[in-house]
This record gives sequence, structure tokens and C-alpha cells, in this order.
Amino acid sequence: MNSFLKLSLNWLLVFVPIAVVLRIWPQFGNETVLFICSCFAIVPLAGWMGRATEELGERLGHGVGGLLNATFGNAAELIIALVALSKGLTAVVKASITGSIIGNVLLVTGASILAGGIKFREQRFNKTAARTSTTTLTLAAVALAIPTVFHVTAAGSWSQATEHKLSLSIAIVLFLTYTCLLGFELVTHKQLYAGDLQDNAEGQQGPRRWSVLKSLLVLMIATALVALMSEFLVGAVEAARASLGVSEVFVGVIVIAVIGNAAEHSTAVVMAMKNKMGLSLGIAIGSSLQIALFVAPMLIFFSYLFGRPMDLEFTLPEVVAMIVSVQLVFQIDGDGETNWLEGVQLLSIYLILCILFFYLPAEAHEG
Amino acid sequence: MNSFLKLSLNWLLVFVPIAVVLRIWPQFGNETVLFICSCFAIVPLAGWMGRATEELGERLGHGVGGLLNATFGNAAELIIALVALSKGLTAVVKASITGSIIGNVLLVTGASILAGGIKFREQRFNKTAARTSTTTLTLAAVALAIPTVFHVTAAGSWSQATEHKLSLSIAIVLFLTYTCLLGFELVTHKQLYAGDLQDNAEGQQGPRRWSVLKSLLVLMIATALVALMSEFLVGAVEAARASLGVSEVFVGVIVIAVIGNAAEHSTAVVMAMKNKMGLSLGIAIGSSLQIALFVAPMLIFFSYLFGRPMDLEFTLPEVVAMIVSVQLVFQIDGDGETNWLEGVQLLSIYLILCILFFYLPAEAHEG
Amino acid sequence: MNSFLKLSLNWLLVFVPIAVVLRIWPQFGNETVLFICSCFAIVPLAGWMGRATEELGERLGHGVGGLLNATFGNAAELIIALVALSKGLTAVVKASITGSIIGNVLLVTGASILAGGIKFREQRFNKTAARTSTTTLTLAAVALAIPTVFHVTAAGSWSQATEHKLSLSIAIVLFLTYTCLLGFELVTHKQLYAGDLQDNAEGQQGPRRWSVLKSLLVLMIATALVALMSEFLVGAVEAARASLGVSEVFVGVIVIAVIGNAAEHSTAVVMAMKNKMGLSLGIAIGSSLQIALFVAPMLIFFSYLFGRPMDLEFTLPEVVAMIVSVQLVFQIDGDGETNWLEGVQLLSIYLILCILFFYLPAEAHEG
Repeated sequence: MNSFLKLSLNWLLVFVPIAVVLRIWPQFGNETVLFICSCFAIVPLAGWMGRATEELGERLGHGVGGLLNATFGNAAELIIALVALSKGLTAVVKASITGSIIGNVLLVTGASILAGGIKFREQRFNKTAARTSTTTLTLAAVALAIPTVFHVTAAGSWSQATEHKLSLSIAIVLFLTYTCLLGFELVTHKQLYAGDLQDNAEGQQGPRRWSVLKSLLVLMIATALVALMSEFLVGAVEAARASLGVSEVFVGVIVIAVIGNAAEHSTAVVMAMKNKMGLSLGIAIGSSLQIALFVAPMLIFFSYLFGRPMDLEFTLPEVVAMIVSVQLVFQIDGDGETNWLEGVQLLSIYLILCILFFYLPAEAHEG
Repeated sequence: MNSFLKLSLNWLLVFVPIAVVLRIWPQFGNETVLFICSCFAIVPLAGWMGRATEELGERLGHGVGGLLNATFGNAAELIIALVALSKGLTAVVKASITGSIIGNVLLVTGASILAGGIKFREQRFNKTAARTSTTTLTLAAVALAIPTVFHVTAAGSWSQATEHKLSLSIAIVLFLTYTCLLGFELVTHKQLYAGDLQDNAEGQQGPRRWSVLKSLLVLMIATALVALMSEFLVGAVEAARASLGVSEVFVGVIVIAVIGNAAEHSTAVVMAMKNKMGLSLGIAIGSSLQIALFVAPMLIFFSYLFGRPMDLEFTLPEVVAMIVSVQLVFQIDGDGETNWLEGVQLLSIYLILCILFFYLPAEAHEG
Repeated sequence: MNSFLKLSLNWLLVFVPIAVVLRIWPQFGNETVLFICSCFAIVPLAGWMGRATEELGERLGHGVGGLLNATFGNAAELIIALVALSKGLTAVVKASITGSIIGNVLLVTGASILAGGIKFREQRFNKTAARTSTTTLTLAAVALAIPTVFHVTAAGSWSQATEHKLSLSIAIVLFLTYTCLLGFELVTHKQLYAGDLQDNAEGQQGPRRWSVLKSLLVLMIATALVALMSEFLVGAVEAARASLGVSEVFVGVIVIAVIGNAAEHSTAVVMAMKNKMGLSLGIAIGSSLQIALFVAPMLIFFSYLFGRPMDLEFTLPEVVAMIVSVQLVFQIDGDGETNWLEGVQLLSIYLILCILFFYLPAEAHEG
């Protein structure tokens, strides 16, 4: 679904060779420059991965296609996180989960509602579909807060092993819930989302469909390049972080999250400006659901494969940020209509949370 | 209201004599077996108490009958808790309050919505009635969280006596709110619930009504047996807890709460499968309201009679569990319609909370 | 908007000379009596300030008038807080912010809904307008909780300067959000509030309009007297607090908040009893929005002018009280209809929070 508008970001592809050059001949720039270039390079690549996944899905029919989108829609974030995980940067990985969720829920949704609201006095959409997503998101935010509640409560008598078992169990429940959500969206209640899909197809009547081969080729190349750029990015994160004077959590929550979601961002805003608010919300909130219910559990499962089990214990500001975002978006989309002020409200809270993460001392996060 | 389906649980009555035998001749089994048998024995007895209360209510007319149901509807939980209270097991008592609330809100409601949602694509009910109950539940959850907020804030300069006065004051406010809620449901806005009652009567056209004498007799015998079984259960709880390797809070939150609510559970599910979703939600959420606004204050008042004042300070996981359950059910029933996925969402969170309580070390609760 | 019913409070003006006498000849009474007299004296003065602001607004046309009301509507609270701020009583200032918010949201709204609900079975109003205010209020409550989250998280490695910068940044965001809210209410979506304004005008057909000169004169005199009474009140607060045995936070949260909002209170209740529920909610919730988004940031800005920067770090009970109030009012007004029980629910929570603030030991607040 996140295909649109990528062309306008394609010029950022120039950062792919630049990043490669910087890595091979380090004398051309420092680690911070490499970090920034890899960030920019990932934006259009993530867009191409999304487009290829979608084209492939189109060829494979509604059900399988939906499943494909649901699985690979956030593949770029997953790859970055896996690379970071393999290097033991669990604070960054967890912060990028938080960041992706609040980035989609507040920044992408807020910008879409504001952009749409400036053109249209009031935008309406299917209330039941919106409430279903938002409630699942509440469930996810609560589930991701539980290990922190455990950690605080069990402070004295707690063991690392128990915390891992708790996180693993929660990851399994989240994954099963995701399966149920897919069943709801793709099988039992697909009519709720029918209007959206039609709108989407209509909105894209321009570009011709790709062949399966082309889709697969693009997907493979983009994935390989994203993996390469993630290597660079994660390798340089420590140096960049230190030279920019921000904390690991700030990098994860704000920087990495914004990069991985740039493509969804532009599509959601364009859809909102075409008065297809249901689709716009579906993209933004759907993406955060995928992060919470699919990417996060996957990262836990992979962390066991890597032999460095990760838990889901987030810092207090991360937990607060997730809960608050979800509550606010529920209040805003629960009545099936939006206006520009509601976009401003979401962006305000995003700004306030960015300020919080910016001022938090680095040591506090690791406590 | 919780009359239905008890017949199918009646075979569990066989555990009443078994429990008695085990208590008199301990050589036939250990304390853990006695604990489990008393648990099973209480399930059908609680059902019979409910049925008798309801039959009596039917004879006494709508107003008095409603009041009777509102007062004795959770008499089994009240008796178990009183027995535990008299032995000073306040952690178990408080955990059984939490457990009854989240059990009804998440497990019973979730199972009903799922069961109903499998048969019907979408189930509708009176939104105002549902919102009224859920908002009262939010109020109750917040009120029960206040002593914990006090405890955390006043940490250094706090005194046991002040904490008891605070809890007692809150219990009085909750009790007065309950009186107002009854006035709303039984007097000023009874029409909102009229459809439900009619549905209920219709759903039960089968069985003939009992005489007042029969109702009273059944009520007395069932109450006496519940009290006896509670004695056994509470007496064996410490041994059972240790041998099963779970904490006191886990026993209260999960085990005791499930036993006391088994009858409501089956009735609510049956009603949902008959597409009487309003009634189903009324039973489940009504039962948790009764626990929070009537049983909990009663236990505080009785604790003064027993000379061992109890406070309402819950552990952090209990507070989180109550707040989260109430928020989720508000998001789900606030729009007056449900579907199967919403049942799954409630059950997911219930599962996640059970996992949390299971992994929490026993000492952490007592801190 | 808060003009009505002031006449009935005018007899309280007698406390203005009494307070002056007590201040000049202290032998007639102690500090506690002076404190109580200044409290009573402010109530009608705040009413006159509101009336004058409104009359002036009427003369200046809808847009400018709305802006004037939005800026000076809570001028009495602002003056009291500025006087307290200039004497370094930041705990009282912050508590009066909390108190004004929860007082308006729970006490004023609750009393209005109850009073209206006793006369009318069900009262309806514009859902979108109500949701917009309530969501902005949620945003504000969250924003005001962020410095506390920062404080708790950064415990070890935290610096006063960072905390001030964080609070200042949040104050700026809140102020900008308020500007957007005014743009929404007075410019882009003023139709949503049109019905209310008409109702208001209609409700006040009685009294003749004032001239600009009269309005300005009344405004100046009332402002000067409020400033004088605030001097007395703040000067006596320490002695009064000690002799009444309550904490600084209790004084701020309960006493000062109730005084400053007495005029809004009576107007909101009268409107509710005339079945103008939209207007009634608009006054109460609008007033708390003004406190959170305009008065609180202003106080932060002024605190820099006074050379004693204030932060927005509230105590845990204050944060809980704000979040809880906002959540409850959202659940109640989000469906566009109210009944008497919902008034009781708001009042119950207000009572429970008062009990909490009453029992909290004084030292705990300053921790």
C-alpha cells in the first residue's frame, strides 16, 4: 500500500554510492557523515521494497498479497533492527520499536490529518475499521508495557531469566493476536476495508503493473542494499551519537524511526489530501500495528537465534510515549471524523515527546 | 440473572462430599487435593445461590428483586473473602477483588464476545447502558488505585492509621456511588435495561418459577455449604500455594476469581450466543461493578468488625491490570457493537496479565 | 461567558472592606481569618472581572471579543498565581494549576451534569465540539505530566537547568497549541460553537449591555481589588495552612482553585438547568483548557521575568488527578449526551481526590 510518491524521493538514492565511497575511503568523511548518508540512502530503498512487495501482492491475489504486505511491509525497519541486534545494540533496537510506533501514530497520522484538514473542513471514514486498529494498538502498547511493570515490581527478587521468559511469552501472544487481526482484515471482515482498497487502486491507476520477475528482482536488490546501508548505519551509530551529543534512545526513537517510515509518511499524507482519510489512517496505524505485533515479536525470536536473548523491557519514557500516543489517537479517530486541529494535537504531543527524549540524559536510559 | 446453564455444572456437586471426606480423614489426600476439591465444589454452589437469589427476586417484584440481586449476586465471592479475611490473609482477599474484576471484564466478556462473534458477524446493543457501566467501572478502578498512589507518594512520612482512614473513606464513597448506580438502573433509567430483562425472561421460559420457601431453603443450604467449602479452601491455600509453586496473589487473582465467577461466565456466554449481547455484557460488567463498588467496601467495613482493619492498597501489577482492563473494555463496548476480534483482544490481554502474575516472584507482592 | 448569576454572589463583596480592616488593624483577627476573608472577597470580584471582559468583548465584535475572553477569562487565577509566584510559593502555584483543572473538569462539570440531569432525563449537545475540547485537555494533561516523567527517569543524572529548559519548551508548545485552538474555535470552525453563543445571548437577554467605558472601569477596579486581596491571601497562606493543619498542595488544589472558579461554576450550573448543556460544558472545560494552555505557560514565562524560573514538575498525585479527570470526562462527554449519574461519577472522583490530597502528609509533597 505504501507505493505512492516514491519517485519524489528517488534522488536520495544518490546517497547509496556516497555511503559506499565513505566506507571504503574513510578519509573522505567521518563516521557521523557516513551515518547521515546511510540514513538518507535507506529512505528511497525502503520505498522501493514497499512498492515491489505491493506489486508482487497484486499478482498473487488479495489474500496472499495481503499476507505478503503484512509480513514485508516494514522489512526495512526489520533489517535495520536485526543488524543492530546482531551487534548487541538492544537499547537502539528497542528504541526503534518505540519510535516506529509513536512516529506512525503521532507524526505520520498527525501530518496526514493536518494536511487533509487544511483542504477539507471535515473528513469522514469507517469508524469500525479505525476503532479495531486503535484497540489492537492499545492492546499492543499495554503488552509492551508489561515487562517494565514486572521489572519495577520485582526489583529486588528478579532474575534475568524470568524476564526473558516473560518477554518471550508476551511476544508469542502478540504474534498470535497479529494472526487473528490478519484473519479479520483479510478474511472475515474484509468488506470493512473494501472501500479503502478500491480507493487505493483508483489512486494508482497511473503506473502500469510490474511483472513477477521485475518485482522479485527489485525486492532482492533493494533488500540487499538496505542490509548494506544498515551495516554502515549501525556501525557508525556510536560515533555519530557521541558527536551529535544525543542518547542512544534518541537515535532509535527519533532518527531511525523517521527513516524507516518516510515512504509510509508520504503516501499517507497524499491519500489524506485526496480525502481518502480511511486509507491514510490505515497506512499509518497499520504500520505501527505491524511493528508492535509482528516486527517486535520477530526480533525477540531472532534474538534467541543470535544467542543474545532480548527482552521487551522499555524505559519509563518509552512506555509513557506509547500509551499516550495510543490514547490520543483513539480519542481522535474513534468518532470516524477528523479536522485539522486534531492533526495539530497529534503533532504537538509528538513534539513534546521529542523534547523529552532530547533532554533525557544518556545514562538515565541505561539504568 | 446468572441462573442459566447451572445444570451442566451440577455434576461438580460431587466434590462437596469428597472435600468433606478429605477434611475428616486427611489420610485420603493432601491439602493441595483438598484445595482443588473445594474449588470445584464452590462452582455449582455459587450457581445455586445465584439461581435462588434470582427466583426470590422474581417473587418480590422488579425493584426489591433488583436490589436483592445487586446485593447477593456475588455472595459466594463475599463469603470466600470473609473467611480469608478472618484468617488475616489480606493479600489473598485483595488479589481476589482484582481477580474478580479483571476476570469478569476480560475473560468472561472476552469469551462472550468471541463466542457470539463466531456466530454473528456483528452484535449490537444499547450504547448508553454499556457506557454507563464502563464509566462507573473506570471510576472504581481509579478509586482502588488511589491508596497505592498515596502509599508511593507518602513513602517516608506515611502512617498505617492514615492509610486505613483513606481506604475507609474511599470505601464509603464507592458504596454511595453504588447506591446511586442502583437508583439509575432500577428507578430513574430502568427503561435502558428493559430490553435486556425481557430478553432474559424469554431466554428462560423453560423452567418453572420456584416458591419463596424453596428459594429461601436453597439459598440457605447453598450459602452454608459455600461457607464450609470456603473454610476448607482458605485453610488449605497456604499448603496448596507452596506445593503448586505459585504466589498468594496468583491464587487470588486467577484461581479464586475464576471459581467465584464460573456461573456468570457460562450464562454470559450462552446469552452472547443467542445474540443477546446487551444482557451478556450486563452480566459480566455488572458482576465486576458489584465486586468493586459493593463487595470491596463491605470487606473493608467487615475488617473493622473483625478488629483487623484492611486497606485498599493494591500492588502495582494489580493496579495496572485493573486500569488496563477497564480502558480496553471501554474502547470495545463504547460504540455499541462488537465482533469476534474484540473478544480475542480482551482474551489476549487476560492471557498477558496471567503470564505477568505467574512470573512475578512471591516476595515482590508482599513488598 | 461567565457573566450570569453574579448578583447572587455580590453580598460577598462585604469581605473586601473586612479584609482591608483586618490587614490594617491585625488586632481584630488572626492571619487565618484574613486568609478566609480574602478568599470570600475574591469570588464576586472574579465574577465582575469576567462580566466586564465579556461586555467589552461584546462591543469589540465576535473575533476580538473571543480573543479577549480567551485571554482574560481566568485573569483572577492568573493574578493570585502571579502574586504567589513573586513570593516564591511555587508549590502553591503549581497546585492551583492542578486544582483549577480538576476543579473545573470534575466539580463544575459534575455539578452541572447532575443539576441538569435531575431536571432532564437526558441532555444532548454537539459531540464534535465536546470531543475537541476534551482531546485538547488530554494533550494538556499529558504535557503537564512529562516533566514529572523526566524527573523520575533522570533521577540520578538530572540537572535543575535541564528541567527548566524542558518545562519552558513544553510551555511554548502548549501556548502554540492554544493559538491553534483559538483559530479553530473563533475562525475555521466557529459554526460548531454557534448554537452555544446564541443560547448564551438568549439566556442573557435581561441585562442591558454596558458601554466600553463602564466595562473598562469595572475591569480595572475589579482587577486592582483582586490583586490586593491576592496579596492578603498569599501573605496569610502559610499561617492559615499551619493553623488549619492542611498541606500547601491541599490549599492550592482545593481552596484556591474553588475560589477562582466560583463564577464559572454558578454560570455552568444555571446553563445546565436551562438544558443548554453544550454551553455549560463549554464554560467548564473551556476554563480548564485556558488554565492548562494559557495560564500555565504564562506563569512559566513570568517566572523568568521574576528571575525565579519555575518548572512544570508536579507531584505524582497531581499528575494522577489530572490524567484521571480528563479520562473520565472524555468517557462521559464523548457520546454527546449526559444523564444525572454521570454527574455523580465526576463528583465521586472529585471527592476521592480531595480525600487523597487531604490525607497526604505535607512533607510528601515537597519531596
